[in-house]
Amino acid sequence: MKLSRLVGERIKDVPSGATLRSHIYLLRAGYIKQVSAGIFSLLPPAQRVNLKIQNIIREEMNSVGGQEVLFPVVMPRELWEMSGRYSSIKDEMIRFKDRTQHDMVLGMTHEEAAVHLALNTIKSYDQLPFMVFQLQTKFRDEARPRGGLIRAREFTMKDAYSFHATQEDLANYYQKVFDAYMRIFKRIGFKNFVAVEGDNGMMGGKVSHEFMAVTEAGEDRLVICKHCGYSSNMEVAVSVKDENDSTVKGEIEEVFTGNAHTIEDVCNFLEIDAKHTAKAVCYKTTDGRLVVAFLRGDHEVNESKLQKIARSELVPVDVEEFGLFAGNIGCLNLNAPSGSVIAYDKSLQNLENFVTGANKKDFHIKNVSASRDLADVEFVDIALVKEGERCVHCGEELSFTRGIEIGNIFQLGTRYTKEMGMKVTMPDGSVKEPIMGCYGIGVGRSLESIIEEKADDKGLVWPMSIAPWQVHFCPLRLDDENVGVLAEELYRDMEKAGIEVLYDDRNLSAGVKLTDSELMGVPIRVIISPKTIVNGQAEVTIRETGEKLFINFADLISELKEMIKGDLEELM
Amino acid sequence: MKLSRLVGERIKDVPSGATLRSHIYLLRAGYIKQVSAGIFSLLPPAQRVNLKIQNIIREEMNSVGGQEVLFPVVMPRELWEMSGRYSSIKDEMIRFKDRTQHDMVLGMTHEEAAVHLALNTIKSYDQLPFMVFQLQTKFRDEARPRGGLIRAREFTMKDAYSFHATQEDLANYYQKVFDAYMRIFKRIGFKNFVAVEGDNGMMGGKVSHEFMAVTEAGEDRLVICKHCGYSSNMEVAVSVKDENDSTVKGEIEEVFTGNAHTIEDVCNFLEIDAKHTAKAVCYKTTDGRLVVAFLRGDHEVNESKLQKIARSELVPVDVEEFGLFAGNIGCLNLNAPSGSVIAYDKSLQNLENFVTGANKKDFHIKNVSASRDLADVEFVDIALVKEGERCVHCGEELSFTRGIEIGNIFQLGTRYTKEMGMKVTMPDGSVKEPIMGCYGIGVGRSLESIIEEKADDKGLVWPMSIAPWQVHFCPLRLDDENVGVLAEELYRDMEKAGIEVLYDDRNLSAGVKLTDSELMGVPIRVIISPKTIVNGQAEVTIRETGEKLFINFADLISELKEMIKGDLEELM
Repeated sequence: MKLSRLVGERIKDVPSGATLRSHIYLLRAGYIKQVSAGIFSLLPPAQRVNLKIQNIIREEMNSVGGQEVLFPVVMPRELWEMSGRYSSIKDEMIRFKDRTQHDMVLGMTHEEAAVHLALNTIKSYDQLPFMVFQLQTKFRDEARPRGGLIRAREFTMKDAYSFHATQEDLANYYQKVFDAYMRIFKRIGFKNFVAVEGDNGMMGGKVSHEFMAVTEAGEDRLVICKHCGYSSNMEVAVSVKDENDSTVKGEIEEVFTGNAHTIEDVCNFLEIDAKHTAKAVCYKTTDGRLVVAFLRGDHEVNESKLQKIARSELVPVDVEEFGLFAGNIGCLNLNAPSGSVIAYDKSLQNLENFVTGANKKDFHIKNVSASRDLADVEFVDIALVKEGERCVHCGEELSFTRGIEIGNIFQLGTRYTKEMGMKVTMPDGSVKEPIMGCYGIGVGRSLESIIEEKADDKGLVWPMSIAPWQVHFCPLRLDDENVGVLAEELYRDMEKAGIEVLYDDRNLSAGVKLTDSELMGVPIRVIISPKTIVNGQAEVTIRETGEKLFINFADLISELKEMIKGDLEELM
Repeated sequence: MKLSRLVGERIKDVPSGATLRSHIYLLRAGYIKQVSAGIFSLLPPAQRVNLKIQNIIREEMNSVGGQEVLFPVVMPRELWEMSGRYSSIKDEMIRFKDRTQHDMVLGMTHEEAAVHLALNTIKSYDQLPFMVFQLQTKFRDEARPRGGLIRAREFTMKDAYSFHATQEDLANYYQKVFDAYMRIFKRIGFKNFVAVEGDNGMMGGKVSHEFMAVTEAGEDRLVICKHCGYSSNMEVAVSVKDENDSTVKGEIEEVFTGNAHTIEDVCNFLEIDAKHTAKAVCYKTTDGRLVVAFLRGDHEVNESKLQKIARSELVPVDVEEFGLFAGNIGCLNLNAPSGSVIAYDKSLQNLENFVTGANKKDFHIKNVSASRDLADVEFVDIALVKEGERCVHCGEELSFTRGIEIGNIFQLGTRYTKEMGMKVTMPDGSVKEPIMGCYGIGVGRSLESIIEEKADDKGLVWPMSIAPWQVHFCPLRLDDENVGVLAEELYRDMEKAGIEVLYDDRNLSAGVKLTDSELMGVPIRVIISPKTIVNGQAEVTIRETGEKLFINFADLISELKEMIKGDLEELM
């Protein structure tokens, strides 16, 4: 490919509206162009990377017995009503009427389509297990698209669906896909990624993992144990909390606390530590029920965990509409309306001698004892993991980081097969719903996350396995006849040798050409110039390390092929 | 791939609603499944074919310097307003509002997106020409989806857009793409296809060609000269009309014709031949203007040609609302409102002594002379080509057939670059809009059209180049231990040798297995059975010809590889 013919331009200035390094470089290096919020055209270099990532995914999906299919982007309402998601998914899903006034949707995911494909054709246990996957454009109407392809509204996704006769078979297959995912992200070039226990969100299954590119640019907070390898999304992370340090018991006593309504104010007023209090955090469910979470005063609510207990999204509440006194809510004698969700965090389980609201304006009570006063309560985990807490597996200190979700895998269970009435005959003649797994990878997200991992302050840095080209050939002083003639010859030789080469055939200054090459991030740069020709050598630079080599022209092609092969093998 | 694990089933009965052979076989052989009208899931065999067709297209587009990109499926209203197509395209385009109430569309085609991509980045003539292409899902809300993938609402399309500084450069490049298309359809396996001069429809350019799979299942009527190779879509076909046979002139005379309102009735009434009449065919434009087409009575209007002259779609009209007398409209003294479109076909150009309406209730006039009475008229071609007419190039008789449009290429001109304000600086310092070409191929249509060409009464017949598998391995009596062991061994050997093999590992009757193999259409079938094992041979059948060979086990793999290679080379 000649650079003079390549569609797209390199620009110097940081484009307005872009804040993430990966997004900025993709725009500056002529890889993507925004068409609308969260909607992009991929220019040729990005599409080359895109196709290479897709091929890696395809190979690994095939290697675990996946069968590639193609589901429709546009689906009828009826299909999504079978699973109940036509109404349960809100504004994220695009809905429209076709010319016959039929309700249609743009597929955000394809569980329904996968079951539809198998419905009436897979009838017996001996046709199980199977897995189908597709590589396809999806559209999700994100409220806040951000970071270019990181959270785009339109994106290329690999989604896969497996069907099993038994939970055991699903668990085994799930592990196979887990391993394939580890290979995929390694082959794409990630060095810094983890699989964390995930939150199931709208998928509604049980076991799940999220594959996270570890980067400060990520939106997800991750909890990691460097000692035993435990890793989890903050939303579901667990930890060993520090122990409660009081065992003294006393009689319950009401105390006037006046305007002290926050835990901080109450602690100051009573001159106690937040560890000796139980605070209440209140929400409302989307159908209007009160939710009260009680935690030890120094802990914070993990809303994601609480949502699961409340079986609803949580919205802010004015507690007075439920007859409660904001700032004085306590875990004894709470007079909550029937239907309310009251949850007690495990941090209160052995707490003795603590302060909590008196459920009476301007008063708290002290000397509350969990063992005495909360004896019948079932304690659950609704707290965020805190810095300094310890791993539940090995007891070592947990660390915190951030990540971008590049893939996820779920043990879905029978939700979709049940709701859509898919049944198979088992060996004993009974019929049952197959158990499903589902497995996603965001292609654009992977493309951009690897940039977050590898780019430097000069520009993009591509791993060889997904690089748009393998060699950036950059002859300097093309107006010099010797350079011009040799450049054409070497370009032809590289192409003939099967090297994927981007040839900067522009007669521009060395400064412009070298800066462009660094910005574009092709792994190997080859320079020739009047000076190197005198020495009979080309100057070869490794983009990632900056390492420089001088190679005799006679050996250039074979050396380049060796370097490329070496890089590719390292990523296999 | 083991057939027992392949998703999808083979069915015996003709599925309801399917009438085209290709559509029926795709459903019966487990290749596609309908999700909604004109919307399908592709099962693994169809997706394998789909990917192979895409790869052929990709290779040939790269070979003419194409740069692969990816445009968005969902685009904002503003982009389509720049070209005026937001309003000019009607119900075929899906429109919806996103969560911010922004108007969006599903892209039916990507001229606007292509210009958007190049806008502000291509600024100088020396960046031209270039061509970008994509392989992508498109949605067109067809009023009458039909024939499975032939006219689906959602489909995979290759679309390409080229930009040029001069018309000459476009014409040269257009020819290159034309040649690439010929190679693509040959490589896909078409033997019977033609490139016909096309109608430009909504693209609005000038020169265009449609690539047509010639088949009676097609919706398009084609005119072909077997002698000189002239071929054209009926919509734009031209021909040598038979000559007018009267030269006598007489005085114009009004005759009472009463209820004789059709040409047939008038001819019967006056005892003349339709060749000696001029009839009027009337329409209305979409903005309400009257359109009257005059032709010799034995010709029919080509509405497509007439639409171009009227610069509007044509809709039925009640001529009385324009003060005319239905059945008595004639080409002399027509009192049409201003703004009406009146067109005179070339068939009237030298017509003498003919009958036409008197523009007066129940009367016609006779002895009209074109040379005398229509001396100032500009005659145009608005007639359909008729059976028996002759080629304008060589004078030989034209033949008629039908075709499915599988590709098209257009010289678009500057319509989109002008409307979207894209300009480049020319060598002389002036600025001008680049001239565009655009080039489409329907992947699903190609897949289904090749079935129409090749399938027989047993089922599908795939060309080797796009076959889902190369070999259908069909051991009979798998319960026989010798067969079972050898089958597993041969299957492994074929896979190891890189042969794409579908292994029917089901222990079913020979009847079922052989019928399934014929239905599925894989090019080479290999049978082993207790009987063939005794002879040390496999039975190899060529699906297309039915030819049978017996090959020693020792030579089987190498012979199969030779056969596959030979087939593939033949299609290159």
